[in-house]
Amino acid sequence: MTVDIRSMALNARSAGRDLGLAPSETRNAALLEIADRLGKIDDSLMEANRGDIAEAHEAGLSPALLDRSTLNPARIQAMIDGCRAVAALPDPLGQVFDGKTLGNGLKVAKKRVPLGVMGVIFESRPNVTVEISALGIKTGNSVILRGGREVLRTNQVLVQLIREACTAAGLPDDAVQLIGSTDRALVPEMLGMDDLIDLVIPRGGTGLQNLVKQHARMPVVYGGIGVCHLYVDATADLERSLPLINNAKTQAPSVCNALDTVLVHHSRVGDFVPGMVADLNAAGVRVLCDEASLAALGDDAVENELVAAATEDDYGQEFLGLTLSVKAVDSLDEAVSHIAMYGTAHSDGILTNDYANAMRFLDEVDSSAVYVNASTRFTDGGQFGLGAEVAISTQRMHARGPLGLQELTTYKWIIQGDYTVRA
Amino acid sequence: MTVDIRSMALNARSAGRDLGLAPSETRNAALLEIADRLGKIDDSLMEANRGDIAEAHEAGLSPALLDRSTLNPARIQAMIDGCRAVAALPDPLGQVFDGKTLGNGLKVAKKRVPLGVMGVIFESRPNVTVEISALGIKTGNSVILRGGREVLRTNQVLVQLIREACTAAGLPDDAVQLIGSTDRALVPEMLGMDDLIDLVIPRGGTGLQNLVKQHARMPVVYGGIGVCHLYVDATADLERSLPLINNAKTQAPSVCNALDTVLVHHSRVGDFVPGMVADLNAAGVRVLCDEASLAALGDDAVENELVAAATEDDYGQEFLGLTLSVKAVDSLDEAVSHIAMYGTAHSDGILTNDYANAMRFLDEVDSSAVYVNASTRFTDGGQFGLGAEVAISTQRMHARGPLGLQELTTYKWIIQGDYTVRA
Repeated sequence: MTVDIRSMALNARSAGRDLGLAPSETRNAALLEIADRLGKIDDSLMEANRGDIAEAHEAGLSPALLDRSTLNPARIQAMIDGCRAVAALPDPLGQVFDGKTLGNGLKVAKKRVPLGVMGVIFESRPNVTVEISALGIKTGNSVILRGGREVLRTNQVLVQLIREACTAAGLPDDAVQLIGSTDRALVPEMLGMDDLIDLVIPRGGTGLQNLVKQHARMPVVYGGIGVCHLYVDATADLERSLPLINNAKTQAPSVCNALDTVLVHHSRVGDFVPGMVADLNAAGVRVLCDEASLAALGDDAVENELVAAATEDDYGQEFLGLTLSVKAVDSLDEAVSHIAMYGTAHSDGILTNDYANAMRFLDEVDSSAVYVNASTRFTDGGQFGLGAEVAISTQRMHARGPLGLQELTTYKWIIQGDYTVRA
Repeated sequence: MTVDIRSMALNARSAGRDLGLAPSETRNAALLEIADRLGKIDDSLMEANRGDIAEAHEAGLSPALLDRSTLNPARIQAMIDGCRAVAALPDPLGQVFDGKTLGNGLKVAKKRVPLGVMGVIFESRPNVTVEISALGIKTGNSVILRGGREVLRTNQVLVQLIREACTAAGLPDDAVQLIGSTDRALVPEMLGMDDLIDLVIPRGGTGLQNLVKQHARMPVVYGGIGVCHLYVDATADLERSLPLINNAKTQAPSVCNALDTVLVHHSRVGDFVPGMVADLNAAGVRVLCDEASLAALGDDAVENELVAAATEDDYGQEFLGLTLSVKAVDSLDEAVSHIAMYGTAHSDGILTNDYANAMRFLDEVDSSAVYVNASTRFTDGGQFGLGAEVAISTQRMHARGPLGLQELTTYKWIIQGDYTVRA
């Protein structure tokens, strides 16, 4: 199938103008329409998905990816709930802020408007198709979707439904378009169209991120890789720290804000590490220890399959599973330096009862989210009260950390005068 | 000369950490120290500049570029004044905002911090060297400068002075570094270092912008190209519109917010265009007219060297000089469509006494700055009250239009708990 991606982008730009000017109720109506139609869809969706899965199975896709790509009633219900939740969020568009009247009488203010056209490249999971479409419609941004080849049929049915829902709600159907081809050359072509596409969001691993970095001429929002640290300070409360570390590691071990490394002040290695390791082991966590921590464990470490000596590579590693590395440090300074060196500026915290050390840690650790006495698992748009979350960014653009609906918008300056000229 | 640009970037990152943590007074002291030292500098600066200019003259640099590259006491004084002005601005760092206490007791807020390391690529004018260094020091961002080859000697003296001023004020001298080589391969190399350089600002023409678009893997702020429009609506006040249009065109014709095209409602072509053309001609402006405007001028247009028939290429053209194109349109809708098609989303306005049309124009024209009854010349960080201006951006990132000191910062989330875990 030949795809004229430039025509798609022109259509997206045109549709985006109407979408961005549509009132809040119309955009929300489209989201509710998508939800309703997903609730009533005939077997065509499951049939398409079965076709995708059968082919992916033939092609030898891993069981994990097969699972992620498979639809079922619960997953469809989650998509429906997601659309309704986004519809219920406050409209980020149209806010007027930073308004002032200048000395010459000019009224100057900023007004929040959509970014424009978003290109979103993602792998497998078909729920992303619905989620990104919903976020785009809500924020007045038209979207061009490039999904994984494994679920092309599924995505085609979903996008067709979304486009019909847009039409039914009075929005242009080209607000949401799917690239209906798996031709690899289309991605670099799309990434070169900075005149028509305003923002690119790659949702995938390092390979995809590198491809985008190499070719994208427009701004990009990259989801962050999280190598997350907690530093157990000399004054940390032992009893209260153990459940916190356990929570940061095990509550959702496969996500980016899960804990990877515990740094322990040398004075606490003896009384802290054995209890922590026992607690984590009980939750199935394998703990990779530096020499000092191993020594503190003594004979308990021997023949314990869930304890091993750490290598240099175990620091700066995003484990995304039930593994954690531990290291003794001499001071707060060393903890801060370790985090600067090995971290990814995602989520890092201190456990302490010392006020001055808490303040220093907040100042000196320059991560997207810096914690005192709290689990790194809180770095999340929902937890921080942003409603929907677009990504957790570790880039240093104007917006950082969890990005919500507002971070899919920009503003224009509006200036009202009385035939005012510049002196 | 061999330049190890990766080492430079590592040094910039390390220096940036100290710079970003330095108190406001220290950063301001460095700026005042630069100003003082510039005021007392010996002949080495002028000597270096004379060497640069002599060589550039030999190399056949254009008179305009030679002029821009030449230092004189007034230009040095302007650099001094610029440093003092930046020192006097409020500190953008350290602001805490959007703070809230969540239901679980977590205190969450954003704190404004530097972007990190900025790479700035610019052509000739040595005042940019001082200006960018001052903005970097003020905002806690270390900078790596790549200036034009025409003024390499001059820049070396200036950067040496700036680095010594940093040291004297207690800041790391690697807060400001100059790439001391004109090897062209260094620019792509620098643009590939997204792990160490957080933001790139190219200050130059389309050729430089394209080079950066091709190679940059990190966020970039591009200065905007301004094809600016004013639409004379059916109800525009004739007497008051003429000086406004004149101001927008002639007050500084070579800059990006100068007027390029006047769109005139067809009902006003007869009474408006002849007076406007006479007024602009008197200021030396050449006016390129569509058929309807030419007809309105009648015999006056014949043998008038400052009037000509417009071609299609005269719309969407940034004249950067005393030339203007004029076009009759049938309606506000046509004006809005023309601006969307030919504009660059920089600065566009309507002249009208009709309230509904003013509101529609503000809603429907999606430019960085949208005006009612005011000169496009106001699109400027100084005019909008931002203090210093970094660039006027027509990109659709989170910040748009005139970018001030705040737009050289980001924020980190700070989260304070009581050994709080995620449920």
